[in-house]
Amino acid sequence: MFVLEQSFKVSYQYQVYFTEHLFDAENALLAQVFRSLVEPGYVARALFVVDEGVWTAHPVLGEQISRYFDTLKDLVVLAPEIIRVPGGEAVKNDRLQVERIVDAVNEYGIDRHSYLVAIGGGAVLDMAGYAAAISHRGVRHIRIPTTVLSQNDSGIGVKNSVNYKGKKNFLGTFVPPVAVINDSAFLQTLEDRDWRSGISEAVKVALIKDIAFFEWLDNQKDALANRAAEPMAHLIIKCADLHLQHIRGGDPFEFGSARPLDFGHWAAHKLEYLTNFELRHGEAVAIGIALDTVYSFLKGFISETDVLRVLNLFTVLGFGLSHEKLWEDDSRHLKAGLAEFREHLGGRLTITLLEALGKGIEVHEMDENLIEKAANYLKTYETSLRLSPSV
Amino acid sequence: MFVLEQSFKVSYQYQVYFTEHLFDAENALLAQVFRSLVEPGYVARALFVVDEGVWTAHPVLGEQISRYFDTLKDLVVLAPEIIRVPGGEAVKNDRLQVERIVDAVNEYGIDRHSYLVAIGGGAVLDMAGYAAAISHRGVRHIRIPTTVLSQNDSGIGVKNSVNYKGKKNFLGTFVPPVAVINDSAFLQTLEDRDWRSGISEAVKVALIKDIAFFEWLDNQKDALANRAAEPMAHLIIKCADLHLQHIRGGDPFEFGSARPLDFGHWAAHKLEYLTNFELRHGEAVAIGIALDTVYSFLKGFISETDVLRVLNLFTVLGFGLSHEKLWEDDSRHLKAGLAEFREHLGGRLTITLLEALGKGIEVHEMDENLIEKAANYLKTYETSLRLSPSV
Ligand SMILES: NC(=O)c1ccc[n+]([C@@H]2O[C@H](COP(=O)([O-])OP(=O)(O)OC[C@H]3O[C@@H](n4cnc5c(N)ncnc54)[C@H](O)[C@@H]3O)[C@@H](O)[C@H]2O)c1
Ligand SMILES: NC(=O)c1ccc[n+]([C@@H]2O[C@H](COP(=O)([O-])OP(=O)(O)OC[C@H]3O[C@@H](n4cnc5c(N)ncnc54)[C@H](O)[C@@H]3O)[C@@H](O)[C@H]2O)c1
Ligand SMILES: [Zn+2]
Ligand SMILES: [Zn+2]
Repeated sequence: MFVLEQSFKVSYQYQVYFTEHLFDAENALLAQVFRSLVEPGYVARALFVVDEGVWTAHPVLGEQISRYFDTLKDLVVLAPEIIRVPGGEAVKNDRLQVERIVDAVNEYGIDRHSYLVAIGGGAVLDMAGYAAAISHRGVRHIRIPTTVLSQNDSGIGVKNSVNYKGKKNFLGTFVPPVAVINDSAFLQTLEDRDWRSGISEAVKVALIKDIAFFEWLDNQKDALANRAAEPMAHLIIKCADLHLQHIRGGDPFEFGSARPLDFGHWAAHKLEYLTNFELRHGEAVAIGIALDTVYSFLKGFISETDVLRVLNLFTVLGFGLSHEKLWEDDSRHLKAGLAEFREHLGGRLTITLLEALGKGIEVHEMDENLIEKAANYLKTYETSLRLSPSV
Repeated sequence: MFVLEQSFKVSYQYQVYFTEHLFDAENALLAQVFRSLVEPGYVARALFVVDEGVWTAHPVLGEQISRYFDTLKDLVVLAPEIIRVPGGEAVKNDRLQVERIVDAVNEYGIDRHSYLVAIGGGAVLDMAGYAAAISHRGVRHIRIPTTVLSQNDSGIGVKNSVNYKGKKNFLGTFVPPVAVINDSAFLQTLEDRDWRSGISEAVKVALIKDIAFFEWLDNQKDALANRAAEPMAHLIIKCADLHLQHIRGGDPFEFGSARPLDFGHWAAHKLEYLTNFELRHGEAVAIGIALDTVYSFLKGFISETDVLRVLNLFTVLGFGLSHEKLWEDDSRHLKAGLAEFREHLGGRLTITLLEALGKGIEVHEMDENLIEKAANYLKTYETSLRLSPSV
């Protein structure tokens, strides 16, 4: 027996830019981004993939993109077609969408030095990022997220995926983008649900990492609920920053099984399924966080005052914090969800709870009775809110 | 405008083991490999995918695998099915093969801490590695290469792929295996073509990197042609080592466009296409190397004595060094192949030539007239061999 050892490191680097009205002729950012990325001597190609929801809400977008690139022809040439794809989870369920993009990459000669640029919500970015990652073993990918969730969480990270035969995110890869550009103007056209939904990821990261950010969120909750642009801009930058730090500080491609940023997510994933994805990811995450926060109290880690502060924050922001699937049949679904999460992690459970507001703690067991109690706590909380709606 | 910078490194590490009769009950290697990989407290799962060509040539393999794992049940449990897939390029052309594996990963609960083990030639490993890379954003992958080419080159590296709509390797990823195990016993059942084919990759890496290895190959050429096991074992270890060094010393995931290990490959890829993959990869590479070696001579980099030494080495090993597609229509196909290769690299050509035996040199232009001359040189060389077959 003889052995050769292989070991190496692969370096990744990308910028997350924050701007407004990216495709305005006067906005030089995108041109600068391409100038920083395209190798001297090359003329790159760029293929755009756009979320139909964004396209409809921004009817001049296509024209703006074409006009913007007219002046950049020495640097990057636009593919003759902008590909529009359905927005939301549907785009991740339909394998033909990935195929359309892969085919366009082929047809328009998008090579490993060219760019697939995706504009849209988290679902479109996940699907397009996957298509980019597998074409030619990876063409360069630029993400332009258009929802709160994708600007502060899903769109700035290193994962992509599609669903397969009813299994959420079953196919995917870990491949960082070469740039992310958050344009706050897109947020104006979001439905209230999508404006709100991504805020739960900010609450998540604040609760496990940053008490000052949590205090700030608590102070801004009314303004955020009223769709004030300024605190939202701050929220997204802060939340994105914490997520980026987490990725680089830990295990970016998740080879291990500890995933502290999944706080509240084990129950959230199960709820998304149980509701057939009628709950948005962020909405399910809010419920999942509420559940694990109550569990942390029942376990004696935090006080009831803390719990009520968290639940009140979510409630003022407009989130529902309970769902009949949580307590149905003695919380059977939650118990099954926990078992599935354990299996997903490869047999050993790692769950993040709170040992204080702003401080997560990892545990490797959860008590099924307490889970059931936590679910009932949320039920009672929501019922009492309905009875006294002024609270 | 505001920017957040992201940068991090991802570390990869894996061993390439060399053994004989891996699944013999007395061979402890595979058990050790699993013991070193499986996290304490886990019981991992393993799903095997086996090349039909190997299965047929080793009729007790399936039984041996089952028996071997019977004693390892506390560490790793075998999936109830061993998946057999067609060998050779066919398996990379048929998308249903990837789907079968992805479905089995799903059905048998192969998670990110479990193992997809592929046994076969380069084509089966490429396809199975791709399926492993995209399932759950990557399940752990162990490769057991069974051809010379896959043991010394394709199976030890970081790339996987399948063909898509007639485009070779159009879909794929860069994802290293967690272990590679080269079992020399498999080589005994190879057809002569497959025994020989992978030797060209050893000649390639010797010519551009290691004159001593080239001298050794030249000394061993008769033994290698006669299928002597011992020099082949040495050749594979040496060639694998040089490839592994190259990967870790450079740009493992090929973000740039210099790929010195592609010496001889621009013409080889074109020939594989033109012959509808009737030429094996290694056979096409031998011709590609011969062509670029002659070109290096015509360009004045090396002497004709050097050229003839290289051509003679290949000839004694049993390789054909010419093909009518090379010179047909004034070498039209080669000229087109060069243009395609340039495009594949994103506009800027980088080709490795020889400035001496054992020393590659990168150039960014090639002279079409000299390419045509080189093709004709090979034609004349082969014709003269046929006229005086004792040479
Ligand atoms: N990759 C990751 O790390 C990661 C992390 C978390 C979530 N996700 C994924 O993200 C997805 C959810 O993303 P999401 O919350 O952004 O929602 P979404 O992508 O499902 O979009 C929701 C709706 O908003 C529309 N829309 C998007 N931008 C708009 C705009 N500016 N104006 C008007 N309408 C607009 C879309 O067309 C869609 O109908 C899920 O599939 C989830 O799995 C991925
Ligand atoms: N991933 C990479 O970095 C990389 C590099 C070079 C080549 N490749 C790919 O490798 C493939 C070629 O691989 P290959 O040369 O190993 O040939 P192959 O995989 O095409 O196999 C050739 C034949 O040998 C049979 N076979 C395999 N092992 C056998 C054994 N031990 N006994 C009897 N028969 C056996 C197979 O069934 C098949 O019929 C091509 O698809 C090429 O693109 C990949
Ligand atoms: Zn989330
Ligand atoms: Zn090769």
